[in-house]
Amino acid sequence: MALIGCAFMGKAHSNAWRSVKLFWDDCPFEPVMKVVCDVDEAALKHGEQYGWEETSTDWQATVTRDDIDIVDICTPNYLHHEPAIAAAQAGKHVMCEKPLAHELEPAQRMVEAVEQAGVRNMTCFNYRRVPAVALAKKLIDEGAIGEIYHFRAVYLQDWIVDPNFPLVWRLQKEYAGSGALGDLGAHIIDLAHYLVGKITRVTGSARTFIKERPTLAATTGGLGAAAGEEKGEVTVDDAVGFIAEFEGGALGCFETSRFCPGRLNYNSFEINGSEGSIAFNLERLNELEFFSRKDPEYARGFKTIYLTDPSQPYMKAYWPGGHIIGWEHTFINEVYDFLNAIKEERDVEPTFRTGLQCQKVLDAVLRSCESGTWESVD
Amino acid sequence: MALIGCAFMGKAHSNAWRSVKLFWDDCPFEPVMKVVCDVDEAALKHGEQYGWEETSTDWQATVTRDDIDIVDICTPNYLHHEPAIAAAQAGKHVMCEKPLAHELEPAQRMVEAVEQAGVRNMTCFNYRRVPAVALAKKLIDEGAIGEIYHFRAVYLQDWIVDPNFPLVWRLQKEYAGSGALGDLGAHIIDLAHYLVGKITRVTGSARTFIKERPTLAATTGGLGAAAGEEKGEVTVDDAVGFIAEFEGGALGCFETSRFCPGRLNYNSFEINGSEGSIAFNLERLNELEFFSRKDPEYARGFKTIYLTDPSQPYMKAYWPGGHIIGWEHTFINEVYDFLNAIKEERDVEPTFRTGLQCQKVLDAVLRSCESGTWESVD
Amino acid sequence: MALIGCAFMGKAHSNAWRSVKLFWDDCPFEPVMKVVCDVDEAALKHGEQYGWEETSTDWQATVTRDDIDIVDICTPNYLHHEPAIAAAQAGKHVMCEKPLAHELEPAQRMVEAVEQAGVRNMTCFNYRRVPAVALAKKLIDEGAIGEIYHFRAVYLQDWIVDPNFPLVWRLQKEYAGSGALGDLGAHIIDLAHYLVGKITRVTGSARTFIKERPTLAATTGGLGAAAGEEKGEVTVDDAVGFIAEFEGGALGCFETSRFCPGRLNYNSFEINGSEGSIAFNLERLNELEFFSRKDPEYARGFKTIYLTDPSQPYMKAYWPGGHIIGWEHTFINEVYDFLNAIKEERDVEPTFRTGLQCQKVLDAVLRSCESGTWESVD
Amino acid sequence: MALIGCAFMGKAHSNAWRSVKLFWDDCPFEPVMKVVCDVDEAALKHGEQYGWEETSTDWQATVTRDDIDIVDICTPNYLHHEPAIAAAQAGKHVMCEKPLAHELEPAQRMVEAVEQAGVRNMTCFNYRRVPAVALAKKLIDEGAIGEIYHFRAVYLQDWIVDPNFPLVWRLQKEYAGSGALGDLGAHIIDLAHYLVGKITRVTGSARTFIKERPTLAATTGGLGAAAGEEKGEVTVDDAVGFIAEFEGGALGCFETSRFCPGRLNYNSFEINGSEGSIAFNLERLNELEFFSRKDPEYARGFKTIYLTDPSQPYMKAYWPGGHIIGWEHTFINEVYDFLNAIKEERDVEPTFRTGLQCQKVLDAVLRSCESGTWESVD
Repeated sequence: MALIGCAFMGKAHSNAWRSVKLFWDDCPFEPVMKVVCDVDEAALKHGEQYGWEETSTDWQATVTRDDIDIVDICTPNYLHHEPAIAAAQAGKHVMCEKPLAHELEPAQRMVEAVEQAGVRNMTCFNYRRVPAVALAKKLIDEGAIGEIYHFRAVYLQDWIVDPNFPLVWRLQKEYAGSGALGDLGAHIIDLAHYLVGKITRVTGSARTFIKERPTLAATTGGLGAAAGEEKGEVTVDDAVGFIAEFEGGALGCFETSRFCPGRLNYNSFEINGSEGSIAFNLERLNELEFFSRKDPEYARGFKTIYLTDPSQPYMKAYWPGGHIIGWEHTFINEVYDFLNAIKEERDVEPTFRTGLQCQKVLDAVLRSCESGTWESVD
Repeated sequence: MALIGCAFMGKAHSNAWRSVKLFWDDCPFEPVMKVVCDVDEAALKHGEQYGWEETSTDWQATVTRDDIDIVDICTPNYLHHEPAIAAAQAGKHVMCEKPLAHELEPAQRMVEAVEQAGVRNMTCFNYRRVPAVALAKKLIDEGAIGEIYHFRAVYLQDWIVDPNFPLVWRLQKEYAGSGALGDLGAHIIDLAHYLVGKITRVTGSARTFIKERPTLAATTGGLGAAAGEEKGEVTVDDAVGFIAEFEGGALGCFETSRFCPGRLNYNSFEINGSEGSIAFNLERLNELEFFSRKDPEYARGFKTIYLTDPSQPYMKAYWPGGHIIGWEHTFINEVYDFLNAIKEERDVEPTFRTGLQCQKVLDAVLRSCESGTWESVD
Repeated sequence: MALIGCAFMGKAHSNAWRSVKLFWDDCPFEPVMKVVCDVDEAALKHGEQYGWEETSTDWQATVTRDDIDIVDICTPNYLHHEPAIAAAQAGKHVMCEKPLAHELEPAQRMVEAVEQAGVRNMTCFNYRRVPAVALAKKLIDEGAIGEIYHFRAVYLQDWIVDPNFPLVWRLQKEYAGSGALGDLGAHIIDLAHYLVGKITRVTGSARTFIKERPTLAATTGGLGAAAGEEKGEVTVDDAVGFIAEFEGGALGCFETSRFCPGRLNYNSFEINGSEGSIAFNLERLNELEFFSRKDPEYARGFKTIYLTDPSQPYMKAYWPGGHIIGWEHTFINEVYDFLNAIKEERDVEPTFRTGLQCQKVLDAVLRSCESGTWESVD
Repeated sequence: MALIGCAFMGKAHSNAWRSVKLFWDDCPFEPVMKVVCDVDEAALKHGEQYGWEETSTDWQATVTRDDIDIVDICTPNYLHHEPAIAAAQAGKHVMCEKPLAHELEPAQRMVEAVEQAGVRNMTCFNYRRVPAVALAKKLIDEGAIGEIYHFRAVYLQDWIVDPNFPLVWRLQKEYAGSGALGDLGAHIIDLAHYLVGKITRVTGSARTFIKERPTLAATTGGLGAAAGEEKGEVTVDDAVGFIAEFEGGALGCFETSRFCPGRLNYNSFEINGSEGSIAFNLERLNELEFFSRKDPEYARGFKTIYLTDPSQPYMKAYWPGGHIIGWEHTFINEVYDFLNAIKEERDVEPTFRTGLQCQKVLDAVLRSCESGTWESVD
């Protein structure tokens, strides 16, 4: 298999491919970590450290190699579609980081490519595979919260609140497509689709609080970056709020921002139904809050379900009860499910088509921020 | 002084008038609790228990009595303006429960009446006088969170999630004006005005999840009610979400609902600025969360400020540090401030005019829920 | 009725007597607040403000007055027994602040006096009447946590961590009997008796971290005090830890201190049983944590029961669900229960005899801190 | 290098050796995972899955192999000393799981062996290397909480609360030495030594709530086990509480139990000093609570420091801020520090000698539970 993109997300995926077999006894394959590609030589230097046999700066040559059967794409958003389509056309199974693409059109072509080729394909909305989120899904499917009235989600970070943080690719429309919306908002839209159902129309508002920033001098690992001397324009949103209607009648309220001091990775949602409520916060990803109206009136309350027991989703792979997992394990779970789908020759959610559905919502939100009115998703 | 309305809010106000002098050593007046009025004899029966010398079913006669100098109005929303205007015209100082009125027009007349009469007037947005909220205001005014980017607030309850809960006045447009919006949303709009500044335009979406309910057989104390045999239409919103723009450029996201199981009185906001963040939740009203970017990077975090110290707003009236106050004390603080304003012959916020500004936002939200586009507040 | 002692606790009790009828519709009596006594004229000045008809510096004359039927004692510990015994001998019902006395012997005489006189008597361990604590008792009695293995409690404050805080009566053995132990530890011992059962033996360790302090210049309201120029010896404990055995076999771990910065009134316990656990913290007194092994394995967790519903202990007296009460309401509940006991001519827990049982544990702990071995309670 | 013991802890250590280089760019060595030993063939089957080149049932042969330079011991407590001493005598660097041994005497021999051989040695008290704990140490060393008055710690689990859970080695004195005390209590004693200083004397009380259990039929992975048909005696403590004196005068309160439903891995401590307090809970290991008296009086509170920033201890190895790590990463940090100590030919804490100091406290606690009086540690 091959990995395209060896920066922050490339490291997370590498760790997943490398560790999946250690944790999952019944993993159907032991991944052979053949090649990692990156155009940035500095990033590529880490390839061996992350466990890859070879490194390459030529993704085109890589994705068509005979000894490659899976291609995993961790490049910036505007570089998703080309390698994904090429890999699919070469008959490789494809995983791709979210959002599926930087714009709607290339995302559509990606879906066509994988479906035509008949290869397994997955959009890496890794938060579906947080055990607490998988448990939320199970509780909802069991009817534990009844008919859903509300989905309320925020995804808040603070990493660019400093106006001198430089103009990285994530802040430029041509590379990222959008700002907080596509980067963070995409996750909570996907969780809404997963947990509640289809979003049909939206109305929103976008803000760019800091309109000019120093140009980028150098990336410094992770999401870090050093500022250069000149200034450039920020062409994406810093924050977006939007209201959504769901097919089933629920009301959706969403907000995403990179300007919330103290909220480092605050992907948090609450779902209210006729029989109960569920709440989640990625900063405490080993916990799920659950309220049930079935409890006796005098003893009701939100229960903090602690997700470390082997009886809980994905947890049998790890440690005895009480020993928490971290953010990186969501990728291990993702890779495990993807390998099983390959083995069993079946789809695995979220497919590229599901990723496209998220892309359509992103597109409708951006349109509504322009038009000032409700915009339909399809 | 006189109280008009002797139900749930009447009890809360009675307790405040009765206890203000016990807690506040320097309260300029000892209130004389002369008359309480209510058209509901069952409610009125509690008048003496709550500390009133007399009871009456005739508010018109009451508000013009010579031995009355303050009139406090705790009736349903549609019955605010008549006694308020009459009292003002009779030269009485007037406190009025929120929202100022059930519609924009009578609210405007109320402002005219008190301003023309030159009497002290206050809209009872009591949550401004939660010590934690007053501390939030102080921190913001000191620049502790810098320039404000975000105001995010929800006010969630669950008291009508049962579809068999009957059609009380709060669920009927002619009496309440709106549903969750005017009842709960009004509070978070006022807090936004208080803490951030003027809201200029809004776009929103309303839902009525349960469209028909049993008619009301009887109220049963507090917010309780017994169902009758027939059905009637719910003519107000069960939930509203809206996005707002502030004069200063901040993005506002608001949601209010009575359909959130487990959220009993979840009036919660978060404010993010260039230097820090503040978060509050009425269900833990003795606490305020504060994050400062001025802390050293390795030791940053949200601080849970526990509000029980005499050095903190309003707390010197109560107990030594560590002894919490309850919801009812917000009214005691309100009455104390109102009495001081009367003594010192000056305005006290939120005046009726400030209450009217909230009413204008409520009106704009309702218009935007109809029109599907942004609506200006003025 | 009469109140002896008009400082911090006197204010809390005054408020209770004054408000009990407002909140409790079915309160059998409307208390007549006749006289308040204090030898400190400065304290006594507040008597009228707190609602008392008369003030007096002569408790002896007061407790025997014909127009007094209840005497409530809020003096420093070493001044409990004399007025309590005198009042009982004069046939008055007696409430007394905790601990029952500063030493074991006068406490024993107090029990004899009230039992001989046949008057109602109550030791004011007010935390039994926190709604959350009463719910804990109910859950335990219902078997919700099964057989009890552990009771673990701390009562931590920080009000004397400043070494310049002066030598108030609470820091002198002849007035207080002991330090943190009798003041704070008494509360958690009483809660242990209430919730778990009889403590049979103990072993402990005491510390006095600051051995000398400035003498007292003046009290400044609440627990505040101003320092004088000279120094005096602290003759009580600043902190005590002890281990206890319960009659039923449970293991008890207790700690109390006034040297815990940030813990303002941290009276917190956890009880673990064969079927579940319960946890409480006075700083969030409207909440109770409850864990049940009866929940399905994949959805277990501590539930935060929010105590504001009329279906919960003591809560029907106050507000609709979601509106919290404060520390002072525990005294209102206490007074209500005491008045009902008088009406119904029956005992009400914790009686003086129950208060004596706590005193015996305090005495055994002090003995074990001296002897370095286990000491029996009886 | 070689690993002895391939069960629960063996898996955790394997993962650490395997991943240390991926996360730590500057790790001085890439570990060669040569052999894993276990007498249990079922456990050994996982050897390859965990990344080991070879498996063996003969630890004696393994620890003397020429191609082995590090021996890591993850066997049950009673099997620590023999391989550790043999490895040291063969000149290998030795890591050993905690507690150092099941009894004091073999622990002493282990210290002699490694010190005589001059090899690097480490007792695996992994919780010193939780980033939050390392930050606590840093704050204390900087004087952030001043002079320490209190160390209060519990380590609570619930995995044997079911009386039918079978008699595993951890419940038998000859294999484990003690029960909750040596397994869990050892960790909080070591943290006390690390953060506060030397414990000089102790007094405690032990309980065995369930005195007989079914014999063991089979282990089932992690800490799981299946019950057999016969019964056997539990010969260790289920719970222990003890009070400790520190060299510096601080008061220590400790409790450990396996009978606390809902507390899965509740290793929690609080430290109170003259200037502030620190609190930690392993169930939320990415957080540290910190209170400072240096904050202005009106804005004090416990700050929840979220430990994910590269500026914080150990965190630069992992992900950008906001992405949490799990329990397993403590072992990765441990292995990294051990390898650096080998490279730099210096000691690394906690050495075997430090582990012995913990063992002495365990021994004193057991003695005091027998004698009923204080017992000195040395």
